[in-house]
Amino acid sequence: AIMPYTPITGLVAAVYTPFDEQLALDTSVVVKQAAYLNATGVHHVLVAGTTGESVKLTVAERKQLAEAWAAVAPTYGINLFIHVGANAMADAQELARHAASIKAAGLVAMSSTYFRPSSVDALVSQLADIFGAAPLLPAWYYHIPSMTGDNYFRGFDMHALLVADITDGETSLPTLRPRIPNLVGIKFTDYDLYTFKRCIDFNGGEFNLLYGRDEQLLGAAAMGAEGAVGSTYNFAGVWGNAVFAEFKSGNISKAREYQRSIVNLVAIYGKAEYAGTDPGKEIMNQLGVPVGPPRGPAKPMTADQITQLRADMKAVGLIPVA
Amino acid sequence: AIMPYTPITGLVAAVYTPFDEQLALDTSVVVKQAAYLNATGVHHVLVAGTTGESVKLTVAERKQLAEAWAAVAPTYGINLFIHVGANAMADAQELARHAASIKAAGLVAMSSTYFRPSSVDALVSQLADIFGAAPLLPAWYYHIPSMTGDNYFRGFDMHALLVADITDGETSLPTLRPRIPNLVGIKFTDYDLYTFKRCIDFNGGEFNLLYGRDEQLLGAAAMGAEGAVGSTYNFAGVWGNAVFAEFKSGNISKAREYQRSIVNLVAIYGKAEYAGTDPGKEIMNQLGVPVGPPRGPAKPMTADQITQLRADMKAVGLIPVA
Amino acid sequence: AIMPYTPITGLVAAVYTPFDEQLALDTSVVVKQAAYLNATGVHHVLVAGTTGESVKLTVAERKQLAEAWAAVAPTYGINLFIHVGANAMADAQELARHAASIKAAGLVAMSSTYFRPSSVDALVSQLADIFGAAPLLPAWYYHIPSMTGDNYFRGFDMHALLVADITDGETSLPTLRPRIPNLVGIKFTDYDLYTFKRCIDFNGGEFNLLYGRDEQLLGAAAMGAEGAVGSTYNFAGVWGNAVFAEFKSGNISKAREYQRSIVNLVAIYGKAEYAGTDPGKEIMNQLGVPVGPPRGPAKPMTADQITQLRADMKAVGLIPVA
Amino acid sequence: AIMPYTPITGLVAAVYTPFDEQLALDTSVVVKQAAYLNATGVHHVLVAGTTGESVKLTVAERKQLAEAWAAVAPTYGINLFIHVGANAMADAQELARHAASIKAAGLVAMSSTYFRPSSVDALVSQLADIFGAAPLLPAWYYHIPSMTGDNYFRGFDMHALLVADITDGETSLPTLRPRIPNLVGIKFTDYDLYTFKRCIDFNGGEFNLLYGRDEQLLGAAAMGAEGAVGSTYNFAGVWGNAVFAEFKSGNISKAREYQRSIVNLVAIYGKAEYAGTDPGKEIMNQLGVPVGPPRGPAKPMTADQITQLRADMKAVGLIPVA
Repeated sequence: AIMPYTPITGLVAAVYTPFDEQLALDTSVVVKQAAYLNATGVHHVLVAGTTGESVKLTVAERKQLAEAWAAVAPTYGINLFIHVGANAMADAQELARHAASIKAAGLVAMSSTYFRPSSVDALVSQLADIFGAAPLLPAWYYHIPSMTGDNYFRGFDMHALLVADITDGETSLPTLRPRIPNLVGIKFTDYDLYTFKRCIDFNGGEFNLLYGRDEQLLGAAAMGAEGAVGSTYNFAGVWGNAVFAEFKSGNISKAREYQRSIVNLVAIYGKAEYAGTDPGKEIMNQLGVPVGPPRGPAKPMTADQITQLRADMKAVGLIPVA
Repeated sequence: AIMPYTPITGLVAAVYTPFDEQLALDTSVVVKQAAYLNATGVHHVLVAGTTGESVKLTVAERKQLAEAWAAVAPTYGINLFIHVGANAMADAQELARHAASIKAAGLVAMSSTYFRPSSVDALVSQLADIFGAAPLLPAWYYHIPSMTGDNYFRGFDMHALLVADITDGETSLPTLRPRIPNLVGIKFTDYDLYTFKRCIDFNGGEFNLLYGRDEQLLGAAAMGAEGAVGSTYNFAGVWGNAVFAEFKSGNISKAREYQRSIVNLVAIYGKAEYAGTDPGKEIMNQLGVPVGPPRGPAKPMTADQITQLRADMKAVGLIPVA
Repeated sequence: AIMPYTPITGLVAAVYTPFDEQLALDTSVVVKQAAYLNATGVHHVLVAGTTGESVKLTVAERKQLAEAWAAVAPTYGINLFIHVGANAMADAQELARHAASIKAAGLVAMSSTYFRPSSVDALVSQLADIFGAAPLLPAWYYHIPSMTGDNYFRGFDMHALLVADITDGETSLPTLRPRIPNLVGIKFTDYDLYTFKRCIDFNGGEFNLLYGRDEQLLGAAAMGAEGAVGSTYNFAGVWGNAVFAEFKSGNISKAREYQRSIVNLVAIYGKAEYAGTDPGKEIMNQLGVPVGPPRGPAKPMTADQITQLRADMKAVGLIPVA
Repeated sequence: AIMPYTPITGLVAAVYTPFDEQLALDTSVVVKQAAYLNATGVHHVLVAGTTGESVKLTVAERKQLAEAWAAVAPTYGINLFIHVGANAMADAQELARHAASIKAAGLVAMSSTYFRPSSVDALVSQLADIFGAAPLLPAWYYHIPSMTGDNYFRGFDMHALLVADITDGETSLPTLRPRIPNLVGIKFTDYDLYTFKRCIDFNGGEFNLLYGRDEQLLGAAAMGAEGAVGSTYNFAGVWGNAVFAEFKSGNISKAREYQRSIVNLVAIYGKAEYAGTDPGKEIMNQLGVPVGPPRGPAKPMTADQITQLRADMKAVGLIPVA
């Protein structure tokens, strides 16, 4: 049996980490982020995930940032989830314990990214080490093969393995479950909705799946997603919420229109002329929430790029604050 | 302006190529395949695609097979699409001319797979060469990066490029369109519904998109797919049709159930114990349509594997013919 | 026991396939290629390999080309090896039989490239099918993962498997050997000299290894290579021969100088401004051996590119014919 | 002009990090490692590189380990190089400053591995940030695409770019050099000796290249390597030294024999039955230098695996201490 917890539904903003112009952490911006999310109907945040530049932060900074969110979250009706993944297990465990100490609502962790687990057993051992450090918090495993190389150059699909034996009745996770009693779900950041659905349907729906590719949210919703986490929900939560709402109301053509807006947004991220920058973070700046530049190896946008970005934002319907 | 043609909607079976036990082409089976498809509500076929073992056939065999389908298609109300992709352009062109001569309804072609196009311009030149050989037939470009390595080890995403400049109003395809007047659509075999939707929405919906990952058909339908091509529609067209129909009727939970059946089916394909075989082709055999073994490098299933396969089929609800 | 044959030592030119301006096969150029090779001390050719645009040719063209080489080879003291790999086994077998009929010295074959073997057993079955069609000719397996995707996106290293169990005395190939009696060696086109050396040392040196990365020939020679096949030996065989000769004479610094010339040559191939063209083939044209343009998807060089190429050739010490 | 420094020649052991059975850092073993290296003729160490489980250690542990080596290095005639690469630049900079404070001989750093630089400019900015923190220490950039995914799924070859414009005289690094005045070389861990040679020859031999694939050291030596860093030099430095020495003396066949021993050793690492473990680290244990088990996600070897490993060691000529 799984631990009691509240499954996440709706949108989770993978919040940007605010830096000043010298790239120092600037937690004074967090309250503005919280207010913006509240105003756009987003009630969950994931702190220091990939969008939040996770491992570019030191352990001390990650704690400081989590504390800043803990301080403002209740005021803005926000549930606080902390990403604690790290390459050094001692760091991940320290972050997990810290998340518990500040009363976070839950943990999210990718496994180590430089030395990757090479089997389900190795993955489970690692998650047991991390999540075992905060055993009373519900925890989500973070699958993001575009960053870790799983599925691609590492020749390894962690989730296909996790769910490998559904069809013939031999399940692997039940065997493993006792080793991670607080594992309740998966943050699934990949286009593959086949594996996603296998995870959703696993063991009668035991897991809480959070879908991580905003640009095909509607497809995931049709396949069964009820929660989603992503970067566009920082500033376009209204659209993400509308995709879910219109889909549930059966207004597919409306849902597609909102989805198209998100698609157009993500297409901006991918423009060749913005290569090496973080357009989403700059969009936040332009919308009046000064999260600042990204740390390296990403570069801040040039003035010319920002001019173009404002035009792109206008074209997709994101109106910058004057 | 695009040439007049009838867009494909609903399911296209990527038909298996029937071989006898000595792996010789056995066109006598084609009529049984046609009857089976007709009985399960599938009214389009793609001949000699990837499922049909395409380039394992000689050019002479591909023509012979196409002719066999042309002979039975009208009787069974089947529209005939011929895959003509090949590494030698002269072969592809010959196959395209042949498809026209037998009154096929349309052409499908992947570009060359050993020497890959390395730019959109090179791709378009190649498609112009192929499709130009049968200029009165509507034609679909075939995108299948899991086989060609595009998106992965080749570091190149053909479709992202095709649609690269939608957002800012600079479109690339309109410039290219005059070079391939009979290009009407794309057979899109990838999980990435973001790029898929960009193709659907391209130029106000100019292209006819056929979705090629049966295992996430429902997600694609939500994003806007109205046609699909795949291997499971050879024997489980009823399920694929039901996914589309229930989705359109707003019965999402019903649609998910049918999708789950397809997911379970595709999970059989991927079972480690069947590695190196072609489980889908053997399913056809077990269902009473004797398409025979696959050619190498795939292996026929052993007796033990077939016993297990029959149990797997039963578990997912595919009842073998006694 | 292996069949009696003469191991290949020294350079094998992977010859360019001559086309006229309309991209039709022009076998009249073959005699000029043969004379050029003879004059530069190259005494083996591989016809219709990757450099020779292999699968861009139809089966009929591949035969015609092989016959053209057979006609001139004796006059110029050239040993003739024919690449017969194809996706359709019937085509590969026909080409193998044809090679025997024209008295080629040997066969080379890559396995199928679209549908890849997924195990050593599948590979061996396929090679047995191909090489069994010309059982009296010695045969070399062609390993080129940069083109087939093995080692990379396919997560599969055929050669590591072939030699997987050397250390602990369990050899896999001896078991397999009876299935391909005429397999005598491997054309090894990869940077990995570790696997290369394992192949060289396999079973006491049973295999004849041909090294295929001209740009690190000296490294391969040190590891034990005595034969090599590549594109630069079409026009810079003098340098390749000198690398081998100086190395054998113990003049390492001289050998490095010649190797550096080949490195500089290959660096031309990789220049971004030549992307999508075939600079090596154009170098041949500039040197007075009119092999013509490449077939698509490669593009002919523009006049500007050719001007630049002539400057590049001069910089590395390849003097164009006036 | 480059800063004054002593180029590294000969072998650098990428030393294992000693842990006790509870996986706590056990610096008491360092002196035994140093003595073993001294006895086998290895006079340089790289601390906390990939072999040393780098980012599995916390920043505090990395400092503690570096200090332990600094304490014993002079006694054993060992030059101390510290790997300082990390995902958080503040961590890398702190480690660089610490390395300077303990009088290390030099720095080595990979760039960030989760968020990768996507251009040469981004890489150089990052190296400038790291190496600028200890500007008086000579520094080597660490290229290891098999771990970072460069060259493979990331579609990006950092070194090919670094040296991209050699041929035509436009060099990129000279422009960049002023930004990293203490960059003196590259630790090059890849099979590609073509790019390796381009780096060696860059700007007349300005860089000190350390070759990182022990299993093809002889090939690299032929191409010009005079220094090497790797894991096998922890316990088989005698062989690595002999490869260099015999090669320099012109005894190629002797050099090949020693290289073959290293090949056989590395083949043990790759045995399927040891997947998920760290055989090299266990070899050290068996040889009487108790560096202990690896941290996760690697697993300690089982008793059965160790029994097999001892047999493998014997087969390749590594005699365990009784």
